[in-house]
Amino acid sequence: MTDRPTVIAIFGVTGDLARRKLIPSLYSNFIKGRLPERLRIVGVGRRDWTDATLIDHSHQSLRNYASAIYDERAWGRFRERLSYSKVNLPRPETYRNLRDDLEALDGGASNRLYYLSIAPEFYADVIRNLGALGMARENGGWRRIVIEKPFGYNMETAQSLNRVAHSVFDESQVYRIDHYLGKETAQNILFMRFANTIFEPIWNRSHISNVQVTVAETVDVGTRAGYYDGSGVMRDMVQNHMLQLLSLIAMEPPSAFDAVALRNEKVKVLQAARAIKLEDTVRAQYDGYRRAEGVAPDSGTPTFAALKLFIDNWRWKDIPFYLRSGKAMRQKTTQVNIQFKRPPNSIFELTERDDYARNVLSICIQPDEGMHLTIKAKIPDEQIAKSVDMELHYKNAFIADNLPDAYERLILDAINGDAQLFIRSDEIESAWKIVDPVIEGWQCDPGAPPMQRYSPGSWGPAAAAELLERDEHVWRISCLHED
Amino acid sequence: MTDRPTVIAIFGVTGDLARRKLIPSLYSNFIKGRLPERLRIVGVGRRDWTDATLIDHSHQSLRNYASAIYDERAWGRFRERLSYSKVNLPRPETYRNLRDDLEALDGGASNRLYYLSIAPEFYADVIRNLGALGMARENGGWRRIVIEKPFGYNMETAQSLNRVAHSVFDESQVYRIDHYLGKETAQNILFMRFANTIFEPIWNRSHISNVQVTVAETVDVGTRAGYYDGSGVMRDMVQNHMLQLLSLIAMEPPSAFDAVALRNEKVKVLQAARAIKLEDTVRAQYDGYRRAEGVAPDSGTPTFAALKLFIDNWRWKDIPFYLRSGKAMRQKTTQVNIQFKRPPNSIFELTERDDYARNVLSICIQPDEGMHLTIKAKIPDEQIAKSVDMELHYKNAFIADNLPDAYERLILDAINGDAQLFIRSDEIESAWKIVDPVIEGWQCDPGAPPMQRYSPGSWGPAAAAELLERDEHVWRISCLHED
Repeated sequence: MTDRPTVIAIFGVTGDLARRKLIPSLYSNFIKGRLPERLRIVGVGRRDWTDATLIDHSHQSLRNYASAIYDERAWGRFRERLSYSKVNLPRPETYRNLRDDLEALDGGASNRLYYLSIAPEFYADVIRNLGALGMARENGGWRRIVIEKPFGYNMETAQSLNRVAHSVFDESQVYRIDHYLGKETAQNILFMRFANTIFEPIWNRSHISNVQVTVAETVDVGTRAGYYDGSGVMRDMVQNHMLQLLSLIAMEPPSAFDAVALRNEKVKVLQAARAIKLEDTVRAQYDGYRRAEGVAPDSGTPTFAALKLFIDNWRWKDIPFYLRSGKAMRQKTTQVNIQFKRPPNSIFELTERDDYARNVLSICIQPDEGMHLTIKAKIPDEQIAKSVDMELHYKNAFIADNLPDAYERLILDAINGDAQLFIRSDEIESAWKIVDPVIEGWQCDPGAPPMQRYSPGSWGPAAAAELLERDEHVWRISCLHED
Repeated sequence: MTDRPTVIAIFGVTGDLARRKLIPSLYSNFIKGRLPERLRIVGVGRRDWTDATLIDHSHQSLRNYASAIYDERAWGRFRERLSYSKVNLPRPETYRNLRDDLEALDGGASNRLYYLSIAPEFYADVIRNLGALGMARENGGWRRIVIEKPFGYNMETAQSLNRVAHSVFDESQVYRIDHYLGKETAQNILFMRFANTIFEPIWNRSHISNVQVTVAETVDVGTRAGYYDGSGVMRDMVQNHMLQLLSLIAMEPPSAFDAVALRNEKVKVLQAARAIKLEDTVRAQYDGYRRAEGVAPDSGTPTFAALKLFIDNWRWKDIPFYLRSGKAMRQKTTQVNIQFKRPPNSIFELTERDDYARNVLSICIQPDEGMHLTIKAKIPDEQIAKSVDMELHYKNAFIADNLPDAYERLILDAINGDAQLFIRSDEIESAWKIVDPVIEGWQCDPGAPPMQRYSPGSWGPAAAAELLERDEHVWRISCLHED
């Protein structure tokens, strides 16, 4: 078993993700001694590269994106693992070359990870072509496929892609990536909730007032405008990253820390989501979006969305989950703010302003990874309380200066067959079931809230604040202290 | 009403407490504009001082103990309030002079605070002598008396002193000081518990494993050896400060933030204390204590005690409260550590060492005032959890550089008639009822645990650790980070 080679075939090795993330992540795992002994990395692409081209390309990638851990001797051992194989993704006949290359490396009985770091329109082709040549068959070693996001464009296309995947691979062989799940702070949500005993007793509708998830980017659509205008914030952020964060926050305690138990609980959350009312949604474009190159002058694609969502189960019934995400926002931040209820009987004087600042547990996903717990404390020498933060900052609490990139963990898990941080087919489809009606309603329902505008560098349109004000809540930003 | 003068008569004004605490605290309140307009401070003592002596003495006191806030112009206004009156405490006839002095100042209808900063053996004399001259009678203005600790030497003497006090004053006029209650961090316990909603739901036997109160001093008995050898740690620390902290931690939510409601709840805690078994106690002397000048060579007075105590009510039944206090200890610290239970089902790997470090809420009374919340978090780049602290430090959270001294608040409250931070007679007696049998058992019961020894600079004798080990617990020190 330990003698069996492991081959990682990276489709789209000439692309951006491979250069910035996949090759550095493999290298980092390599120097930490976490990869199998007999590892081979096969770059797959359409270009006329040679092994030497790939090696040069990878060398450059490491110098640019892994400079802190780059080591000449380790590179000497790493480069020996690299080879290149040319494939034209939609054309089945070009896969024979790949098949022969891989079999020459491993005799056909190796473990193989196919990593699809390619444009989504080719996912189905590659899967079918691998299937046609029997390259998914586990004849001794395992076969797994990693599929990058976006997985589908809506429910219909996601289901269709799942059908293709399942026609060739078993679900247990399919690893759908949402790189947010690989982030240390996202992984810590489960540790925080279930390795501690102080949070779980108050983690429910009896004690929590509302939950807020903010994923804000400062960048605008930039050079990705053409792609983005066909997608929008709901597909780019909400359907995947935000609903994944939501399910980690809202899930019941799993009976074990493994892929089956965890994903069973996560999907239950998504399946319990109440259909979102259009009146509980806000969509907006930042000023200037429609003038960006590649964007239709009458584009109806939102760059910002805010939603109110309910989870109809015993734990969460009628507790609002507010989600918002946008481009060209004031600060780059991903954070979850769990706001608790007011004291049932207040015996202390509170200032008007403090009345809003009840207990909040803030999970700072990025940047400045950590946690804040906003509590009331007595102001010294006065008789009133004010809100203060108990804080945990990763940069202080842990020796590690640099948190590992999400891909480092995810690619290692895929090699080790641990699927807990990957999205199962039913999760993907449940997530589309939540966002699809909103996207469709915005496009087709004349009663849908109109497209709003917001200034780049703001926190989004006024309508997003009003969405919460209707419930006497306010958006919280707890994780930024430079403000 | 506002025109009525207020007179503070400090008995024992020539003593240490007046010099170090009372005069600086009055001055601090004075410059903050918190004292009544027509205020007079009358120093009372046995010495042949004049007003000028007291003014000099007070000036020196402020230069030494209030230098940060000393201001020449304010002093000029403050000194005008000061006068001196000579009294020989046990001799009734000398009080006529005081009575006349006070009536000359206020016409007899002022508000008057008698502050007993004198040796405890004179408390009863002073109270009786004030009573004999009708000086406790509220003829228009109020009359109040502040009594320093120790209030009694045991239950019998405390009851006797209460009888004397009540023969002259109504209980509502009696302000028994425990200066720990004036500390900002002690006051904050109630704010922490009842201005927040995240703590109260887990503040009970279902979620808390044990509560630990540590009051450690680094100093040995020093020049107070003679006094201390007649008292010991149970009377010096446990009966008052520690049981007060305990009652703040353990009390039910009061219906109002006032003296009646608060003290009703506090006394209920003490009254619910189960009789302490001698086997749940540890007593010890530090090496060298018996050689200190003024200490009997065969002294049986403990300088260290550790106890296990139970509160027999619905909230706390069978949850151990561990108390320990000592002199000549390793660090000066007063802290409360509330340790929560283990997760009912642990799905994560924990290191053996971490198994002990469950969630702990640490209230750092002094020094480095603040709160720590010890939680488990995932170690980045690993799959195991470790304990990390979310921290609140007063020195960072509040603008105030210097926390006001406990006496500043207490003396102001007494002037304002707010008794919530003072000890009611039933509290005093309930506390003695808890500690008296332990002190007596140690002296008289042949089966009592023997006196232990400990090295100065340690955390006490091994028996104190064993007391917790029997229950599979360990003493926690969370509030010191220089370690």
